[in-house]
Amino acid sequence: MHEFALIDRIRKQFSQTQPEVLLGIGDDCALLTPRATLAVSTDTFVEGTHFFKGTSARAIGHKALAVNLSDLAAMGAKPLYFLLNLTLPNTDESFAHELLAGIHALAALYQCALIGGDTTRGPLSITITVFGECPADKALRRSAAKAGDEIFVTRKLGAAAAAVYARKQNIKASTALCKALDFPDPQIALGMALRGVASAAIDLSDGLVNDLSHICEQSALAATLQAEDIPVSPAIDDLPGINAQQALQFAVNGGDDYALCFCASPLRREELHAICANLDLELFHIGVMYAKSDASQGSVQVWHGAELLPIARGFQHF
Amino acid sequence: MHEFALIDRIRKQFSQTQPEVLLGIGDDCALLTPRATLAVSTDTFVEGTHFFKGTSARAIGHKALAVNLSDLAAMGAKPLYFLLNLTLPNTDESFAHELLAGIHALAALYQCALIGGDTTRGPLSITITVFGECPADKALRRSAAKAGDEIFVTRKLGAAAAAVYARKQNIKASTALCKALDFPDPQIALGMALRGVASAAIDLSDGLVNDLSHICEQSALAATLQAEDIPVSPAIDDLPGINAQQALQFAVNGGDDYALCFCASPLRREELHAICANLDLELFHIGVMYAKSDASQGSVQVWHGAELLPIARGFQHF
Repeated sequence: MHEFALIDRIRKQFSQTQPEVLLGIGDDCALLTPRATLAVSTDTFVEGTHFFKGTSARAIGHKALAVNLSDLAAMGAKPLYFLLNLTLPNTDESFAHELLAGIHALAALYQCALIGGDTTRGPLSITITVFGECPADKALRRSAAKAGDEIFVTRKLGAAAAAVYARKQNIKASTALCKALDFPDPQIALGMALRGVASAAIDLSDGLVNDLSHICEQSALAATLQAEDIPVSPAIDDLPGINAQQALQFAVNGGDDYALCFCASPLRREELHAICANLDLELFHIGVMYAKSDASQGSVQVWHGAELLPIARGFQHF
Repeated sequence: MHEFALIDRIRKQFSQTQPEVLLGIGDDCALLTPRATLAVSTDTFVEGTHFFKGTSARAIGHKALAVNLSDLAAMGAKPLYFLLNLTLPNTDESFAHELLAGIHALAALYQCALIGGDTTRGPLSITITVFGECPADKALRRSAAKAGDEIFVTRKLGAAAAAVYARKQNIKASTALCKALDFPDPQIALGMALRGVASAAIDLSDGLVNDLSHICEQSALAATLQAEDIPVSPAIDDLPGINAQQALQFAVNGGDDYALCFCASPLRREELHAICANLDLELFHIGVMYAKSDASQGSVQVWHGAELLPIARGFQHF
């Protein structure tokens, strides 16, 4: 499939428009007239780093967009449109079609319009840049958590990390585990509902402890988590030979959950329960933010009863 | 150099802010409150496809931003800010520093602030997404050329393509040729000055004929160029064994010029001369747009006197 044929295909497949997009695909630039504050995020998705060689093209496409939408969710933003930079190693038409189908299905779900991008040849890599809208004063910033805030997640954690473990160990992972890793579901509706309710939020891409430490650092606070309260995905039980401690490790330090982790004042509990009931989500209160008294402490501590657990930091790309 | 150390370095080095950037690097999203219409463009820059292995890190950084700024120029937009997605194969600190220095020097020149991005490990690749501002009714679209418009460039062409040829043939290229290829200079001031004056514009990345054909297709017109009027870079003469015809081929079909090619009504000639005098640019009138009478014709013809030259189409990535 030649480059211009690919671009033509993309243009036809992603024909959805948005009123504030004056000019979409096909010129030197897209032209936008945003009505509200724009939230912008971008993530690159590289074979061998972010997904295993051999992952289905549809999953790659889905996840490349999903991880970006998850950043919008973490800000409380509503998806509007996106840019797609596609680097393909060859002209395999069916691979390109499946990849685009994976992106398109998720984009259509959120009525997120493609406004431009780039296609080039090289080692398989996808960069997506998403644009969302969000009232500036209600955006969920990492820096606005308060001491005494409670820490929540609304999804059981660790399944994607368990799937990574299984693939690395050459153990067959169940459908549920594979789905958690390959087709993450960004919590867009939750993010929007948390505007003005949560004090801070982040999406879990690099592991709970690692990601929560960013909120701690930017809010100049620390966090304690109670291991018994951290919801561990029951799908991990599908793996042979994994004990409860290892499962907890997946939930605490594993990446790729793409669930929101957020902080809120205890005064907001009732609202949070109502939001989660509306969205058919479980609310898990996993810990509390507190003023850091000792700079030498790690910013996130995980306790099991009265025992402080040794925890390793999560994922770095290099 | 670990990922978080790299991010810290980037954050410190690119500390410039913009009043309309509410929130820059460091959260899940950047938050923007644009005052005018936003022009957005993105390009991925891959080792082996867009630059030779062994190109200096500073040149790679410069050019990765320059090709994107050139897209803003082609729209008549003023650069505001950008996103940087950096995929690095290893932890070579000096390479990363030089690359960032190349980006930073050009960004500082245009007061273009870094607002976010992504760092990851993988085969060397850089995606930059630029944002500029432009009054919507004065943006230089590809689709608005008119029959009878004259076609212009303001820079001599072909030097970058000659440098590519030299490197492929293992011939030593002169400093001038290398500079043309490695450190292209986006025509931002020209693009802004052409707002409301030129009818259509494009930047020359894939070769004059190839790029001009996009204006033709989107304006439903054809173009004739006069070979004698196409300005050929004198730096090409530095290469041994290149005759005038080959030099013309570099200028007509070579890529990587990053000069603007634009169309304007003959009534605008005086204004164009004044603009170019102000910016210290030469104005080269190379051809004319005309109504396409025969759909089987190629959209861009190059004549030498009364003889129609056989021309090949320019660059496709795959």
